[in-house]
Amino acid sequence: MELWYTEEQTDSVRFSIKVDKPLYTGKSEFQRIDVFHSKEFGNFFTLDGLIMVTEKDEFIYHDMIVHVPMATNLKIKNVLVIGAGDGGTVRELTRYDSIENIDMVEIDKMVVDVCREYFPQTTCKLDDPRVHLYFEDGLRFIRSKENIYDLIIVDSTDPFGPGEGLFTKEFYGNCYKALKEDGILVNQHESPYYEEYAKSMQKAHKRIKELFPVCRVYQAHIPSYPSGHWLFGFASKTYDPLTDIDEQAWNSLGIKTKYYNTDIHKGSFALPNYVIDILANEGD
Amino acid sequence: MELWYTEEQTDSVRFSIKVDKPLYTGKSEFQRIDVFHSKEFGNFFTLDGLIMVTEKDEFIYHDMIVHVPMATNLKIKNVLVIGAGDGGTVRELTRYDSIENIDMVEIDKMVVDVCREYFPQTTCKLDDPRVHLYFEDGLRFIRSKENIYDLIIVDSTDPFGPGEGLFTKEFYGNCYKALKEDGILVNQHESPYYEEYAKSMQKAHKRIKELFPVCRVYQAHIPSYPSGHWLFGFASKTYDPLTDIDEQAWNSLGIKTKYYNTDIHKGSFALPNYVIDILANEGD
Amino acid sequence: MELWYTEEQTDSVRFSIKVDKPLYTGKSEFQRIDVFHSKEFGNFFTLDGLIMVTEKDEFIYHDMIVHVPMATNLKIKNVLVIGAGDGGTVRELTRYDSIENIDMVEIDKMVVDVCREYFPQTTCKLDDPRVHLYFEDGLRFIRSKENIYDLIIVDSTDPFGPGEGLFTKEFYGNCYKALKEDGILVNQHESPYYEEYAKSMQKAHKRIKELFPVCRVYQAHIPSYPSGHWLFGFASKTYDPLTDIDEQAWNSLGIKTKYYNTDIHKGSFALPNYVIDILANEGD
Amino acid sequence: MELWYTEEQTDSVRFSIKVDKPLYTGKSEFQRIDVFHSKEFGNFFTLDGLIMVTEKDEFIYHDMIVHVPMATNLKIKNVLVIGAGDGGTVRELTRYDSIENIDMVEIDKMVVDVCREYFPQTTCKLDDPRVHLYFEDGLRFIRSKENIYDLIIVDSTDPFGPGEGLFTKEFYGNCYKALKEDGILVNQHESPYYEEYAKSMQKAHKRIKELFPVCRVYQAHIPSYPSGHWLFGFASKTYDPLTDIDEQAWNSLGIKTKYYNTDIHKGSFALPNYVIDILANEGD
Repeated sequence: MELWYTEEQTDSVRFSIKVDKPLYTGKSEFQRIDVFHSKEFGNFFTLDGLIMVTEKDEFIYHDMIVHVPMATNLKIKNVLVIGAGDGGTVRELTRYDSIENIDMVEIDKMVVDVCREYFPQTTCKLDDPRVHLYFEDGLRFIRSKENIYDLIIVDSTDPFGPGEGLFTKEFYGNCYKALKEDGILVNQHESPYYEEYAKSMQKAHKRIKELFPVCRVYQAHIPSYPSGHWLFGFASKTYDPLTDIDEQAWNSLGIKTKYYNTDIHKGSFALPNYVIDILANEGD
Repeated sequence: MELWYTEEQTDSVRFSIKVDKPLYTGKSEFQRIDVFHSKEFGNFFTLDGLIMVTEKDEFIYHDMIVHVPMATNLKIKNVLVIGAGDGGTVRELTRYDSIENIDMVEIDKMVVDVCREYFPQTTCKLDDPRVHLYFEDGLRFIRSKENIYDLIIVDSTDPFGPGEGLFTKEFYGNCYKALKEDGILVNQHESPYYEEYAKSMQKAHKRIKELFPVCRVYQAHIPSYPSGHWLFGFASKTYDPLTDIDEQAWNSLGIKTKYYNTDIHKGSFALPNYVIDILANEGD
Repeated sequence: MELWYTEEQTDSVRFSIKVDKPLYTGKSEFQRIDVFHSKEFGNFFTLDGLIMVTEKDEFIYHDMIVHVPMATNLKIKNVLVIGAGDGGTVRELTRYDSIENIDMVEIDKMVVDVCREYFPQTTCKLDDPRVHLYFEDGLRFIRSKENIYDLIIVDSTDPFGPGEGLFTKEFYGNCYKALKEDGILVNQHESPYYEEYAKSMQKAHKRIKELFPVCRVYQAHIPSYPSGHWLFGFASKTYDPLTDIDEQAWNSLGIKTKYYNTDIHKGSFALPNYVIDILANEGD
Repeated sequence: MELWYTEEQTDSVRFSIKVDKPLYTGKSEFQRIDVFHSKEFGNFFTLDGLIMVTEKDEFIYHDMIVHVPMATNLKIKNVLVIGAGDGGTVRELTRYDSIENIDMVEIDKMVVDVCREYFPQTTCKLDDPRVHLYFEDGLRFIRSKENIYDLIIVDSTDPFGPGEGLFTKEFYGNCYKALKEDGILVNQHESPYYEEYAKSMQKAHKRIKELFPVCRVYQAHIPSYPSGHWLFGFASKTYDPLTDIDEQAWNSLGIKTKYYNTDIHKGSFALPNYVIDILANEGD
């Protein structure tokens, strides 16, 4: 059966995955959701035609969005996760016994429902007693929150469609307000390689930098995302991920990971010159 | 004009680039050579249908294969480059005034000829007086060499077709012999993500580790290569790239690079756990 | 959503349809069944990855496989249909009040079940009281039949997989036996344009010609099949489709068709020289 | 080498040919010209990305555009060919000793130059002494001609780009004027299957019908064109292709053809009902 999913990463670049079996197609109030099975990536799902999660490499993304802030501050107790309907971010967070509460705010309940059916690998901890699910708009949810979270993780789609508001100055300002005085904000930060993504990255960085005293970007190899070169933003009111990481403490927790380790933690903040240049440049 | 170059990275993964204009097609004694122009990647060329060099991101590969060993030992004077017909590795080497001699051994003269025509960006230093071109088999060339090179760079194709011999134990042994007592061997080391590539990586590492006291692997983001997660091998008789790097000295040279910097140098040796595991595993 | 169904019509020819929505995927005892929706072709289904029926152009195939033999002999009363799980052939047959009985023998019940759900357009007459469905192997079904059918229509898949036996000499011999003395055999007859299909066409013709006094081939434009140039075989014990057609009688029936008419009937037996040559050639 | 030429026949239908070797790419004053070699189709060339001629099936198009009018009136002596830069139409015309003069008007000299290099199979008769090449706009060329041609063949591209004017009422009017009182006009007439092509077909037919007493459409199976179902227009002042064809006379000429024969001649005017309906419908 020759059925190919194709992501047009740019006008002239296509990444295609042979689909063994289409598993699900639906349209929620917010977006189109498709789930496929492929030999190379296992199950994977797309929102409005863009790959979100593949069984093969979701561990990379989830390791890097969770363990980098956690290893920087092991005293984190109260976490807000925005987006992340696949559950993978929550799964990694629940591995820390020290965390007492996880609020997860996903605008699209159908994403969670579909993932529960096709991605037990990522949704397996959504019913952990510390996890509270809110199916509403993250932008609105956060407006009323003040000085309560140790960590906010923005695990959003690209800044097109439903995820757009999660890249605005207003939203980042509300994150700042919702965080405690030593709070940390981590967000998926797009990619530096293809122009359209690089512009999103540049804008997001500029906006966060205006608000947070510490504002850094780190990278990972995520082959199923455009260019495979993916970035995360680390912003905080006090903590610095390079100087405040307590390697020994984190390693003594015995958390087994397939991507993250404390060397990668430090190495991932070393960016190529061309990425540093784009981030330094103020953009339009 | 809808003309697409497609690389079948695995049986079920295709990476496709829209071709604006086919520039050259030829068949040498060793392999098929094609050059295309695309909007996203500029000119790019393929050997036996696999992407070797694109104008857009060749700087990443060439920065990482050259500046990592050079920053580790700035006293390198005599260099052997095997493969590298596009000239990019030599171009980066010639930026070091301290280098006195570069022997470049490329089995396929047609690759150099074609690149001279379509890739002035990479071939521009092939006529530097310190560069000596040998169009012959690297395996044979190196057999008679003993204790003369400070650095050998193996800038080969994948271990299929003409590049196969450059992944054998015999070849690595001859590299060891051709290197001085403080010599360094750097080679392109395939990728850990897709199985077939990971096996090549594993085998190459195993063979080099048996010969060289220092044997490390470092990584870079090269989006035009399969998975975008590409590795290099660093082997040496004495030098350690993490402890022997002289950051200040390298930075004082004022070499402008678009990817490499001394932070990336150190960060690139921090590998994901899953890559460490494959490398530690002895393979078949 | 960029999801493309691709049929590799030959090693170097691909026909691809953008899929709006995958509707069904299943595996029966005999073959893989997929149903897709596309903007251009409406719903279409594939067996083992090959297009069988599209809502857009099924009328062409079904018009030509049914009305050509019917217009040649309007006294046909008892019909055997082999294959044709989509129901389109039966639908056209039921438009003739003169037909008293239709035995339809489809090896794969799942094809009929799936088509009933997704192709009401073709299955709408499967419950006509004159229609008797047998879910068994057409080869076996026909062995015990002798001198009872006026018309046998072999509406099979390609001669690979489940449909293979329907292209054998033994099968055609049993068809001959099952037909009355003035019986007609019509079968889908592959295509003359791409080599692999042309060989199947050639073999089928050779075998039928050895058994039936009248043996002709006629053609239609079916764009969703490889090359768009599709053939049907007309074999009979006495009737000649060009001389025995009663145009006036057929036209007076008032059957509205979108492809077939009595001019097309006659014109469709005029084959290109290159097709005549392949058919005349004895093959291997 | 995975290089695929793709023609987007509609927004959701792609026809792709594996390219063994790109042979030529150029841009004339009028259009982009590409020549490729493929295993299935041999050499083929495209204008502005659309397939014009393939070595494998050009004989079908050229047989049908030439022998249908010629067999209808074997006394044709003076012929005007518009377009047809590949030379195939002229090649077929030169097989008639009775033809005394062929004016061929091709707007784009580069098409002829490129075809002379890569398509000796079609250009082989361009230097016949009866052939006169004019590299100019067919629209302008014909304006000054009156009552001189027995046959005009419009072998144009689609009605987009340079070929657009060859589908206008003004142009058809000038053809009428340039033809003798028993003159014949044949033109490539697009395809009925995909909507955009069907509209062009409908418009062309409507315009010609207003001018010529005899106005018919005939079809052929050309698999390398969109849908494989291709049409030609036959218009004339007196001759009818179905009643005036002199089969015996044509057959006695002994012209060997791979597609055309006098049965196909007659059969090709028998159109499917859905095509008749579109042609009868006045359109916009």
